Amino acid sequence: MSSPLPASCAQESVEIPSVPATDERARAAARARLDRLTKPLGALGRLEDVVAQLASIQGCDRPTLRSPQIVVFAGDHGAAALGVSAYPREVTAQMVANYLAGGAAINVLARLSGLGLLIVDAGVDADLPVRAGLRDRKIRRGTRDYTREPALTAAEVAAALSAGRALAREMVDAGAELLIPGEMGIGNTGSAALLMHGLSGRSLELCVGRGTGLDDAGLARKTAILRAARDRAPTVSSPLALLAEFGGLEIAMMVGFVIEAAARRTAILVDGFTVTVAVALAGALAPRVGEYCLYGHRSAEQAHRALLHSLDAEPLLDLGMRLGEGTGGALAYRTVEAALALYDGMATFEGAGVSGRAP
Amino acid sequence: MSSPLPASCAQESVEIPSVPATDERARAAARARLDRLTKPLGALGRLEDVVAQLASIQGCDRPTLRSPQIVVFAGDHGAAALGVSAYPREVTAQMVANYLAGGAAINVLARLSGLGLLIVDAGVDADLPVRAGLRDRKIRRGTRDYTREPALTAAEVAAALSAGRALAREMVDAGAELLIPGEMGIGNTGSAALLMHGLSGRSLELCVGRGTGLDDAGLARKTAILRAARDRAPTVSSPLALLAEFGGLEIAMMVGFVIEAAARRTAILVDGFTVTVAVALAGALAPRVGEYCLYGHRSAEQAHRALLHSLDAEPLLDLGMRLGEGTGGALAYRTVEAALALYDGMATFEGAGVSGRAP
Repeated sequence: MSSPLPASCAQESVEIPSVPATDERARAAARARLDRLTKPLGALGRLEDVVAQLASIQGCDRPTLRSPQIVVFAGDHGAAALGVSAYPREVTAQMVANYLAGGAAINVLARLSGLGLLIVDAGVDADLPVRAGLRDRKIRRGTRDYTREPALTAAEVAAALSAGRALAREMVDAGAELLIPGEMGIGNTGSAALLMHGLSGRSLELCVGRGTGLDDAGLARKTAILRAARDRAPTVSSPLALLAEFGGLEIAMMVGFVIEAAARRTAILVDGFTVTVAVALAGALAPRVGEYCLYGHRSAEQAHRALLHSLDAEPLLDLGMRLGEGTGGALAYRTVEAALALYDGMATFEGAGVSGRAP
Repeated sequence: MSSPLPASCAQESVEIPSVPATDERARAAARARLDRLTKPLGALGRLEDVVAQLASIQGCDRPTLRSPQIVVFAGDHGAAALGVSAYPREVTAQMVANYLAGGAAINVLARLSGLGLLIVDAGVDADLPVRAGLRDRKIRRGTRDYTREPALTAAEVAAALSAGRALAREMVDAGAELLIPGEMGIGNTGSAALLMHGLSGRSLELCVGRGTGLDDAGLARKTAILRAARDRAPTVSSPLALLAEFGGLEIAMMVGFVIEAAARRTAILVDGFTVTVAVALAGALAPRVGEYCLYGHRSAEQAHRALLHSLDAEPLLDLGMRLGEGTGGALAYRTVEAALALYDGMATFEGAGVSGRAP
């Protein structure tokens, strides 16, 4: 590992499962049942789309959402030391401790909605305690500084993907019918911006944002740092090579997690910018991943809008949030849950003796 | 009542309470506390605005949301017989029966979120059963046909406002800290369009929409009916006179309900187009009503967007729903509840030992 493979070789070493097509018959059956409920046709708007998509994912016209599970992937970034974030690097480990103590936003949302919550150390630059609720999948203590060298070796990327896949497999085997990936990593919107830039060809400036709240000077500094990284590896565009060049470990692990969830026909509720970048990479590696994704929240991070547009994705919520952790997904879960409750709990026109449309 | 007062006299007969200013000190204190929670500054986006507004309404930096209550006001419309809706008039009473049986969308959302639900007969054109969960406040069996004569007398409008005020008083006295008005009335987006047109001076065409799902021909028919009504009383613009001209009873009762709630410093979570028209009328009668309103959902009804804009209101949700009943408010409640849970449940930077922003 001390002499990494050239990043361009990375793709060869990773096995990518294929993702099955969703079930259009189940989707149509759910639509037909929605039309029999006591409401004007189509009057539940996007909630009807959610139900129909869940039906198509589960191949069943009466989908369920048992054991929904948040998994927060945490990792550090070598470039954070350069000042790519408004917060110091040690906050990553401190926030993991906050998650384990139950005091972060994602804890509150998990408790409120009865969501399982697992924290995964994908690459935090600290020794974390052995604790229930924390899974040690540390590939290394933070990525390398991507302005000077590739952030990860191909083998490290492969290991992260593999760990992410195994975690999704474990969750699905334990009965989770909805997975909400989240992330924590000071500096990771920088990696996400570089990944989006490399994958989409959009200008770097469009892909960079204020992250946790940079001011104008901070944004200029971050952009300069990312430009230096990009200029070190300007032509890389394949998903695994991009992950090797720019990290991060939590993003690579989410890519594996999302691919495996889709391969196992499990719905994924997508959070903000960084998670959506992982989804875009997953979709580039495994076609049809997007059909398993529900989009939770449009982040205030400016690049998220363009990225969602390129994925033809319209999030359920748009509340100006920008704190990661899976909070946008966990908040949107409350709306997804309501959509399914309406579908399951409403009477039909026949059952309730309500007249249909006038002739 | 057989010889109604001219509509222009209506305002004189109704007592309108004054609405106190909200508490800006409590709002600032809540903002200060939000900034100490373990998240980037401002990172909860609009959820922070919700918390701050609730604090300003309750005059307390730790607001609560005890006993949240949905009240669905139901009424019929004389003009419904002309074909102003996609559904026949008897659906109003049938849907009330559906509410009482627990099978409608609003029942499901109330159960899911632990919201109280009361149905109020403001003017349904049917004999409804005496049942727990249904309050008889019937002013008359439906409004008169507004294309031929005023829909209501001034006395009927006054009685509806008074009944709405009394209901809000009762709820607040019983401990409700959040009220969600909803409505059911086949044809009531027609009245709402006429009210918006008269109050705002916007073109009638902009105020008319497809309601429960009219096709192009139905929309043209509805617009022609509303134009006939408007041409009968083209210069009326005061809120109470408009209610007398165009109804409906459920809308007038909501106006009183909203005014009294605001006068009693109680937060109102606003549903879709018809409820927002009631809020606009309430605000025209009693300044500062809007400060007590949180907006839940932007309806698919096209006029709602313009109306919200004129109220400087930005709903929390925009999910293409259009079924009334208070469903947009009840769904948005889940987000409001989450906002307050985050505010109450998150650790502070000091408490959790997390570093603040880099210098």
